[in-house]
Amino acid sequence: MANRFVSMKNLRFILHEVLNVESLSELPAFSGHTRKSIDMVLSAAHDFAKGELHPIFEEMDRNPPALRDGVVSVHPGVRNILRTLGDDGWISAGFPEAWGGEGMPETLLHAFGFIFAAANYSASVYAGLSAGAARLILSFGSEALKKAYVPPLLSGRWQGTMALTEPEAGSSLGDITTLAEPADNGSYVIRGRKIFISAGDHDGADNVVHLMLARIRDAPAGVKGISLFVVPKLIPDADGKPVSNHVTVTQIFHKLGYRGAPITELSLGENGDCHGFLVGEANRGLGYMFQMMNGARLEVGMGAAAIATAAYHAALEYTRSRCQGRRLTDKSSAKPIPIIRHPDVKRMLLFQRAVAEGALCLVLQCGLYEDQMAALPAEEREDLHLLTELLTPVAKSYPSEMGILATSQSLQCFGGYGYCEDFPVEQHFRDMRIHAIHEGTTGIQGMDLLGRKVMMKGGRALMLLGAEIEKTTMAARDFPELSGMANRLAETVGRLATVTQTLGALGMEKGPEALLADATLYLECFGIVTIAWQWLMQAVAACRGLSAEKAGREQIAFYEGKVLVCRYFFAYELPKTEGLFRRLTDTEGITLEAELKHFTD
Amino acid sequence: MANRFVSMKNLRFILHEVLNVESLSELPAFSGHTRKSIDMVLSAAHDFAKGELHPIFEEMDRNPPALRDGVVSVHPGVRNILRTLGDDGWISAGFPEAWGGEGMPETLLHAFGFIFAAANYSASVYAGLSAGAARLILSFGSEALKKAYVPPLLSGRWQGTMALTEPEAGSSLGDITTLAEPADNGSYVIRGRKIFISAGDHDGADNVVHLMLARIRDAPAGVKGISLFVVPKLIPDADGKPVSNHVTVTQIFHKLGYRGAPITELSLGENGDCHGFLVGEANRGLGYMFQMMNGARLEVGMGAAAIATAAYHAALEYTRSRCQGRRLTDKSSAKPIPIIRHPDVKRMLLFQRAVAEGALCLVLQCGLYEDQMAALPAEEREDLHLLTELLTPVAKSYPSEMGILATSQSLQCFGGYGYCEDFPVEQHFRDMRIHAIHEGTTGIQGMDLLGRKVMMKGGRALMLLGAEIEKTTMAARDFPELSGMANRLAETVGRLATVTQTLGALGMEKGPEALLADATLYLECFGIVTIAWQWLMQAVAACRGLSAEKAGREQIAFYEGKVLVCRYFFAYELPKTEGLFRRLTDTEGITLEAELKHFTD
Repeated sequence: MANRFVSMKNLRFILHEVLNVESLSELPAFSGHTRKSIDMVLSAAHDFAKGELHPIFEEMDRNPPALRDGVVSVHPGVRNILRTLGDDGWISAGFPEAWGGEGMPETLLHAFGFIFAAANYSASVYAGLSAGAARLILSFGSEALKKAYVPPLLSGRWQGTMALTEPEAGSSLGDITTLAEPADNGSYVIRGRKIFISAGDHDGADNVVHLMLARIRDAPAGVKGISLFVVPKLIPDADGKPVSNHVTVTQIFHKLGYRGAPITELSLGENGDCHGFLVGEANRGLGYMFQMMNGARLEVGMGAAAIATAAYHAALEYTRSRCQGRRLTDKSSAKPIPIIRHPDVKRMLLFQRAVAEGALCLVLQCGLYEDQMAALPAEEREDLHLLTELLTPVAKSYPSEMGILATSQSLQCFGGYGYCEDFPVEQHFRDMRIHAIHEGTTGIQGMDLLGRKVMMKGGRALMLLGAEIEKTTMAARDFPELSGMANRLAETVGRLATVTQTLGALGMEKGPEALLADATLYLECFGIVTIAWQWLMQAVAACRGLSAEKAGREQIAFYEGKVLVCRYFFAYELPKTEGLFRRLTDTEGITLEAELKHFTD
Repeated sequence: MANRFVSMKNLRFILHEVLNVESLSELPAFSGHTRKSIDMVLSAAHDFAKGELHPIFEEMDRNPPALRDGVVSVHPGVRNILRTLGDDGWISAGFPEAWGGEGMPETLLHAFGFIFAAANYSASVYAGLSAGAARLILSFGSEALKKAYVPPLLSGRWQGTMALTEPEAGSSLGDITTLAEPADNGSYVIRGRKIFISAGDHDGADNVVHLMLARIRDAPAGVKGISLFVVPKLIPDADGKPVSNHVTVTQIFHKLGYRGAPITELSLGENGDCHGFLVGEANRGLGYMFQMMNGARLEVGMGAAAIATAAYHAALEYTRSRCQGRRLTDKSSAKPIPIIRHPDVKRMLLFQRAVAEGALCLVLQCGLYEDQMAALPAEEREDLHLLTELLTPVAKSYPSEMGILATSQSLQCFGGYGYCEDFPVEQHFRDMRIHAIHEGTTGIQGMDLLGRKVMMKGGRALMLLGAEIEKTTMAARDFPELSGMANRLAETVGRLATVTQTLGALGMEKGPEALLADATLYLECFGIVTIAWQWLMQAVAACRGLSAEKAGREQIAFYEGKVLVCRYFFAYELPKTEGLFRRLTDTEGITLEAELKHFTD
């Protein structure tokens, strides 16, 4: 197994030198979060990840959850991990002090979540789901619900879930049919089926709390008739003793990867009344859920960036030690060289790093915008809100889609060994593949970006992003070695804006299908431009570091490496936008024209 | 499980209408292979694939080979399949009648191999390896070796292998150290280790025959001192009774996919003398092996095309029946629509089909060139030889690399279900991933293409390819709907030639590392251009079909579908060359500059 799964130096570089996350401590809400305290948090997270999560990375994959007699058993480490994450305050870290938390900024939550996910993605999701469920209850639930459910969720004793998907309603949530009927005691009786529920039940927690979408009888059709419920696995009886609430696990899904976490199918109320408790107002459930969705989508992007990072470090370690072949300029040399010295291997490593570190930077950047926004009075939040809304589908999809290619290249670096279970990269490749699917497929993200986000408020979000990028290109022009890239980025952003207008006009003329037919490719193109910006930001920070005094030799190499990866991105990745621009401005509607008969024979 | 894994109609279309494979029957060597007999062969292959291979596609994956007490046990179906393939003449099909074969053209061997691989890739490789081993012996071995080994290999009773790779010599075969010492009886005593030997041992065969590279004591260093040996698992003792030849299986590799076939590590002569028999002349082993390598590489491309095809058909079946969402133009509709009606889903299907059917066409085209070449007198073969040499790395790598993306898109079409073992696509995604590695990684193929193939004979191969493509563009200009694409292809081929010259000049000036640094991307670009050509060929055949009388409604839809996929390729895939051309003509040598210190911190 690879020893290293993350570069702490890189993480600190991005947080401090690129994003200046310490500036948050100037805001009253985050005053305690100084550079020193942030580094202590990161260091503690790394210790835990290294000591508890990473050692069972492969074990959890090889011994996936099992369903026997209605009980889902998971790796015994899960119970211990959840408890420790609860006891040591990781699950509650982002919560107010009144709930035992530290009011930690999102940026930092993403940063330690990244470390956990890089160490062991499956192991890291349990606690994240509990925190997400607790946050939903805290945001929209009654005082009674908060009191009953938030503390045990944050303690790591209970497991939280998000229960949205149904057999006939995945991407199309308006079609869910799980039914809630008002009961006498103020609760609702729930009947239905849910599928693909992550950590939907397991023996590592004492109870499971589902945040579940259902339809109250006679509610309006479609998305406007969906309500949010708390549905616990165990419920207190008249004497306060926990008894079954008739949430039955009917199957667990056997999956390509992400095998350490049980993905379950649940049947509700099949063998007895299953009670749910309404969160907030009736029929507003999807809205509540979607207010949490940005966070969940950023977490997916962060998880994908983390897996890509771990795979990159495994490949780096291997290519440094594996000797094979000669330099082309010295073919008769007696001894083979470490394969990292072959240009094609370096290219593959640069690609992996460009994806992993670019994606990480974007997710943290989004977290930072959210923190800055949270510190503002409500009426001044709109711009930062628009910006995070715009960037969320990108921060979700770029890491997820490019992560498939990045982990595939990690695997390739190992040659035949990469295909074998002896090394961790085949698992990273499998674990990665879920991210383009869960929390909204890439196709859904593309339609969200092009159909809603760039169009909202007359395109204001895109304008705001342009202004943010301009700050970076202006800063980059201070450094001669970056000015050419700054110009290219500015030019590409201009082209993206033009293409967006062209598509908008097409949509006005030919309707939403024509507008959105290639929304996925628009998202791909948008993602490349966005990550180019993130790399230029990193290169600016690196050049600043280089021009400061006192950088030691290793530090200089680190900064030079950053500039090199930025150059790689502009030379190898950014040109991919050219074909995409060409595609997006070609209005031949092939996919609209294609009919079923053309596919069958 | 998906019911359909291949479109026989498409295969016949490519063989007959696009490639006119029947024209081979005009050559004396292939006179028996008329359209009717070809279709009978394909139909019999399909029956066998459907009846015997496809039903155990998943079973073989879920019950991978196991090594116990030195014995590798495989799925019990393997023995039966191998015997039937032997008895029914599939293994020997391409061999001369004198050896029980039918002298079937390569094109047809690839075609039925494609059907087998689409049905069950792992199950299909056993017999292919035996045929390859037999062919090597027949081409270069002594009469005694032929008599002893060829018949049992072709009968399916014995298993053949190619034993090249060693722990310290994968891509770099010049470094192999397996040692052969002359013994008294004319044999050699072999000592060493081999890894990643496909079907290197199993209980489905009565004996295993390794075609093995080793170095005779005191042979020249590097590639010029490698000899080829036949090394059987069992060897006759003085009484003719088969006894152990001391080829020990020391481990089998547990893999991401391709799990139905045992990939073994072998130890030679550890517990007693292991005898090998020299094939051909000493020190010429790598050359012999490489004469077979083109065939093996085409088979890899064909296998990848086959897996992509099976995954496409699974996705097609699913997206036709799965209902989810509404048309954007009719959002309030009560009933969800089959997801194949969403433009983004159609786009994903068109992509999969463009890759799978484009790749298949190229592999069969290469087979056809080989068959045409084989029918010529030796002195007239050069042009066709150059053409197949040039196209082989492309036909190996395009299906393998793009197949990763294509099967990933097949998986995506299923949403969350695609990630689960309930559907076959996650297995296709895993099975696919080996192809960019085995028989020479993509990196090796890129260097082969740019460093050798396009440069050989003063660039003659590229010129010949240009002439072939021109035949197609000329034919395409007969059809108004294709003429725009014909022009674009001609223009892109021109740009490719220019870029090749630019790179050649760069190599002259800066040496081989500068020339080859981005050889993988050159190969990627070359592949897109080549497949665009293959699609234009298919579109020409479809237009011819459309303009002929008497095509029924279904046949018209099929032809229209072909033109549509060709248009998809030119509108969505060909533009990818733009960024690649930009990249390849940008001479910033980032990967040459990058040093180890830039990667570490």
